Amino acid sequence: MSTSKTHTIALDAMGGDVAPSVPVAGAVLAARKGNVNVLLVGDPDAVRAELAKHDTAGLSIQVVPSEGVIREGEPPAMALRGKPRASIAVATGLVKAGKADAVVSMGSTGAAMAAAVLAFGLFPGLERPALGGPFIGLAPRVSIVDLGSQVDCKPLQMLSFGALGSTFSHVYSGVRSPRVGLLSVGSEEGKGNAQVKEAYALFKKSGLNFVGNVEGHDIFADKADVVVCDGFVGNVLLKYTEGLAEAAARYLAEALGPRSPAVKAIADLASLAEQGGGPLFGVNGLSVIGHGRSKAEGVAGGIDVAARCLESDLVRRMRDDLAAVMARSGAHA
Amino acid sequence: MSTSKTHTIALDAMGGDVAPSVPVAGAVLAARKGNVNVLLVGDPDAVRAELAKHDTAGLSIQVVPSEGVIREGEPPAMALRGKPRASIAVATGLVKAGKADAVVSMGSTGAAMAAAVLAFGLFPGLERPALGGPFIGLAPRVSIVDLGSQVDCKPLQMLSFGALGSTFSHVYSGVRSPRVGLLSVGSEEGKGNAQVKEAYALFKKSGLNFVGNVEGHDIFADKADVVVCDGFVGNVLLKYTEGLAEAAARYLAEALGPRSPAVKAIADLASLAEQGGGPLFGVNGLSVIGHGRSKAEGVAGGIDVAARCLESDLVRRMRDDLAAVMARSGAHA
Repeated sequence: MSTSKTHTIALDAMGGDVAPSVPVAGAVLAARKGNVNVLLVGDPDAVRAELAKHDTAGLSIQVVPSEGVIREGEPPAMALRGKPRASIAVATGLVKAGKADAVVSMGSTGAAMAAAVLAFGLFPGLERPALGGPFIGLAPRVSIVDLGSQVDCKPLQMLSFGALGSTFSHVYSGVRSPRVGLLSVGSEEGKGNAQVKEAYALFKKSGLNFVGNVEGHDIFADKADVVVCDGFVGNVLLKYTEGLAEAAARYLAEALGPRSPAVKAIADLASLAEQGGGPLFGVNGLSVIGHGRSKAEGVAGGIDVAARCLESDLVRRMRDDLAAVMARSGAHA
Repeated sequence: MSTSKTHTIALDAMGGDVAPSVPVAGAVLAARKGNVNVLLVGDPDAVRAELAKHDTAGLSIQVVPSEGVIREGEPPAMALRGKPRASIAVATGLVKAGKADAVVSMGSTGAAMAAAVLAFGLFPGLERPALGGPFIGLAPRVSIVDLGSQVDCKPLQMLSFGALGSTFSHVYSGVRSPRVGLLSVGSEEGKGNAQVKEAYALFKKSGLNFVGNVEGHDIFADKADVVVCDGFVGNVLLKYTEGLAEAAARYLAEALGPRSPAVKAIADLASLAEQGGGPLFGVNGLSVIGHGRSKAEGVAGGIDVAARCLESDLVRRMRDDLAAVMARSGAHA
């Protein structure tokens, strides 16, 4: 999508499996497409050394120095306190300070979330942000929320996932009246665990286009545009899908030879998560989080996702829609 | 596997999507392989009409009359009370009466479970049976327990899944010391929801070969032979996998043409669940439950599964091992 306005994106140049080379290459790709200023936030020497490998003449890329990185697995809040100048903290801070419109990172999801909560604050009524969006190549328009941010959810948290996912599906994926389903073990009302049964009642009076329970296979059967689940279930599904896709590609490569078109077809499906990432749901600012394994194209894709979210005013619309849904459900938001 | 002894199997001839023709054809296939007597339990006229379509000379197949069928979706306990002569009730009763060694059904899972609990009784300490076994073509030796029988599990129920799955993996799949993992959202101890965290402590002192938490992708990475999860999560994964495999086959057929070997390769993987089914865990008798979509080969496969379970004395060993694990965990079993 070409955006009509130039946006300034703070890119965590130290985030991801191969940093800063991959983020820098991604920034160059994105800047070449135009309509974007990229602020590369990272160790200035390392970032400049990578930049020197590219032809950056005429590109709008600046380097913003930071100190240190927060790695996947470090306790995010504690790490942010210990490394307040880490790349993700500085990049997110640029947005808060009005010097960038959005932050994009392929680094630690937990750190990006914690930095965003700290800098932007949560929408009223939320306890944590949510992670959501499409991640299944074979169901590329189905947004699943939550993908691992919130476990042991209360029904009201599930409802917030539905509201956030519905706005995302509408604003970002262009679905007119997104069908919202609760992931469960049977399609009828009353099927499921205690959490789903309680949430069901809230969804019914939410004003969302609630289509009831959906089962695992319904994700591929166009039954819902937004599938709501506890972050435990969503995270298991996300990682399961990743492992399954890799195993399927290996299996087909062995069965049919590595050059079989089937292997490429499956690998393309599997790499959906690495094609740009998605925005964090529920914070008063735009933070796009991508997969650590993303290549340069994925980083550029993440920058493009950010531009699309900015164009569509996603954050404000999510906040407004969430407040309306919570009010309609009689919930204090 | 050829079994050394002749077993008598009560087959629910009315169970499955295309009954009684598919179960009857499956019984004929199984009986031809020898070493098995099949009692076809169903509407006698309908079953005999199907049998007449096959050459059954010399085969050990008898018809046992029943009245009515319990369909998928009927509340099992209530349906059993209303139809005490239904095929699954009569077939299970034959085992209880010592006239058959095991029951096999491709019909309603809930009805087969309820009939087995009623006729055989549960192992000491269990509240419900569990459903488990391998179901993923790309991880054919990984048993996942529970697949939908028990939701909102207490930690002790999770532990029983681990014990039952471990014995199954050892006795049935031949894994010497099965590695048992808890499905979670992070590999370190302390990651997960409240249920997993509590169960973790029980598993540590269980005497099982507990390998800690495993994540969704670890199912494909040979990290564990038995993966324990709440039935809500297991059922979502089971149905998700089914939907994904179908969608992948459709996708490859469109991308590469329906005759592509990749389509067959994926379809073969997807049909694992239809290749025989698995035994119910936790009842004092052998009940093998298969997929409603199974074809004749799948029904014969289910009969073969039953024979293998009988040969290995699976039920007694599961009961003994469960009692030992529960005792070691200080649990009242």
